Amino acid sequence: METATLQLMNRVEFGAGAVERLAAELADAGVRRPLLVTDPGIVATGMADRVAGLAGCAVARYDRVPANPTEAAVLQAREQFLDERCDGIIALGGGSPLDFAKAVALLATHAPPLAQYAMVQGGMGRIGPTVPVVAIPSTAGTGSEVGRGGLITLQDGGKRVMASTHLLPRVSLCDPALTLSLPAGLTAATGMDAFTHCVEAYLSPRFNPPVDAIVLDGARRAWRWLRRAVRQPGDLAARGEMMMASIQGGLGFQKGLGAVHALSHPLGALQAPSLHHGTCNAVILPAVLRFNRPAAQARIDALEQALELPAGRTLDAEVARLNAELGLPASLGELGVAPAMIDPLADQAMQDHSCPTNPRPLRRADCVALYQELLP
Amino acid sequence: METATLQLMNRVEFGAGAVERLAAELADAGVRRPLLVTDPGIVATGMADRVAGLAGCAVARYDRVPANPTEAAVLQAREQFLDERCDGIIALGGGSPLDFAKAVALLATHAPPLAQYAMVQGGMGRIGPTVPVVAIPSTAGTGSEVGRGGLITLQDGGKRVMASTHLLPRVSLCDPALTLSLPAGLTAATGMDAFTHCVEAYLSPRFNPPVDAIVLDGARRAWRWLRRAVRQPGDLAARGEMMMASIQGGLGFQKGLGAVHALSHPLGALQAPSLHHGTCNAVILPAVLRFNRPAAQARIDALEQALELPAGRTLDAEVARLNAELGLPASLGELGVAPAMIDPLADQAMQDHSCPTNPRPLRRADCVALYQELLP
Repeated sequence: METATLQLMNRVEFGAGAVERLAAELADAGVRRPLLVTDPGIVATGMADRVAGLAGCAVARYDRVPANPTEAAVLQAREQFLDERCDGIIALGGGSPLDFAKAVALLATHAPPLAQYAMVQGGMGRIGPTVPVVAIPSTAGTGSEVGRGGLITLQDGGKRVMASTHLLPRVSLCDPALTLSLPAGLTAATGMDAFTHCVEAYLSPRFNPPVDAIVLDGARRAWRWLRRAVRQPGDLAARGEMMMASIQGGLGFQKGLGAVHALSHPLGALQAPSLHHGTCNAVILPAVLRFNRPAAQARIDALEQALELPAGRTLDAEVARLNAELGLPASLGELGVAPAMIDPLADQAMQDHSCPTNPRPLRRADCVALYQELLP
Repeated sequence: METATLQLMNRVEFGAGAVERLAAELADAGVRRPLLVTDPGIVATGMADRVAGLAGCAVARYDRVPANPTEAAVLQAREQFLDERCDGIIALGGGSPLDFAKAVALLATHAPPLAQYAMVQGGMGRIGPTVPVVAIPSTAGTGSEVGRGGLITLQDGGKRVMASTHLLPRVSLCDPALTLSLPAGLTAATGMDAFTHCVEAYLSPRFNPPVDAIVLDGARRAWRWLRRAVRQPGDLAARGEMMMASIQGGLGFQKGLGAVHALSHPLGALQAPSLHHGTCNAVILPAVLRFNRPAAQARIDALEQALELPAGRTLDAEVARLNAELGLPASLGELGVAPAMIDPLADQAMQDHSCPTNPRPLRRADCVALYQELLP
């Protein structure tokens, strides 16, 4: 008899136009002075101005969220939050602003530094109520809109997750129309992030049948629609399906992820090169699927069946083929990762919170071998 | 582009032995003086004494929950709750005690009568915070352990649902070992309740892909394991699968149910005969599947495929066959429903909250025809 803690999610308002609920949601949360947290790319599209205009109240702004958020930046935003007497947060953007906003909300009501709240330090129990966050994803991939965790590169250089139900956004406005202007490269990379979340959660050995059903369906959905979202960026139906797949992948986090994320998080913590999380996941996924197959044959079979792969094709090869079709890189070397980086990366990977839920036990030598295989 | 409000569930602690967490969960909720709400059948098994002994504090008891809970009984239990200065509720039993406990929790912090909080009266918005409820299901079927609603027969004789996220149990301890002693007849009837929840939620036209994935998997799970749970009552694995199917069905409620429930609720509100909800659902399901097929062909096809029905077999016929195998009745007449009851039953069915989410519009004449078809 298996046991499980099942706890699914916050409220999601899904659909084209969902962002227009912002003023009503802030009012419902009692937020009168929100801090809009976003990044320069979102500002450049005009989306930050549009969202600020939908808030129905005066909005403070922190619009310098780094591509891989750092604790130093979180502390800056926290200072602004306190100085401007804000009482809630609008998180607008991809996974970085969403994760970042959770950390700012945490430190709005808790003392720094962040390290004491990190999951790997047993910090979950030290996280109490925070200020309300309304999340507005601008990509379809992160899953952070329904996740309890935020990943931040801490002062010591490690990328760590802070997680608690108190960090769940109060509500997420998931508006696929916001992703219509996302460039093909980012659509591909974030879409593969959603797909990877579904696959890794499905392969996690933790017992959670409702989540298994959600992520298996989410993997199928991303597999069916990602090509179309990349090739026909203005196709709202495809954008909606990918945003739903992102939500489904995010609902999978509670089962834990696996080696793809354990290997990917340290890459995201590098100062140089600055790497995109979804892109790293896409590159790493085929090798990890081959590595995991001996320990997860039945589940990989089920995935191959759900995705309706032609007979004789394997998921790892088909993912590599899809990456190539979508213009994603095939190796970490292409991304600027060098052999000398592997040893410290492997050290970090072993400390990652996704390590224990990989279906095949992941030793340090495995991490080194996987990074090496992915380098050329 | 479809839109949806997605909001899944409370926390569930699932597994054999989960009930032993009771004292810790009450303490975590700050409950020092719980009212244990249960029914005479549960008392007779000794389970009420066992659970009271696991509470880790002095427990008040209301153990007279009627088979189809009435507002009069809720008011009695409320008085006891207030008189004994209780600060939380342990709900132990099948759907009746669980629904009943939600209504008592509601009236612990809100003024009677219940009618003003009924969903069909727009009462959802009038429901604010209540006292904590720890739910402990003793059957695998109701879904109330993860549902936001409680069904009570009100003073006017109508069976109405009160629903709000404030009525979700704070935590549900879903312990399949508690169902090992459930008699075959109740195992069958409650199991068909879980199956019906999954089927009706799947056929509801509301857009909610994560819930669709959960209930399709739940339907398959119940279909695979119910026979074994009935025939080998001591099989803990089968009991666990059925309890999981019950949870999955309960997660489906947010999509809305359909005609089976619209027709079944008025039957449960009859003073005589006193009818079992799951049994009524099982009897009604085949006729409603035939009625719905023209409006829901693709979804019924998907169900037939998920359940791996042999080619040429239809879901409605297979459900009827399963009912017969499990010793469940084939008609409402066998249960004591008489022709003269049909007109008022149809009136009530048209007012039921499940009516609008049936995939085929349900008119009064349809309700009359379905009741008539089910009578012989």
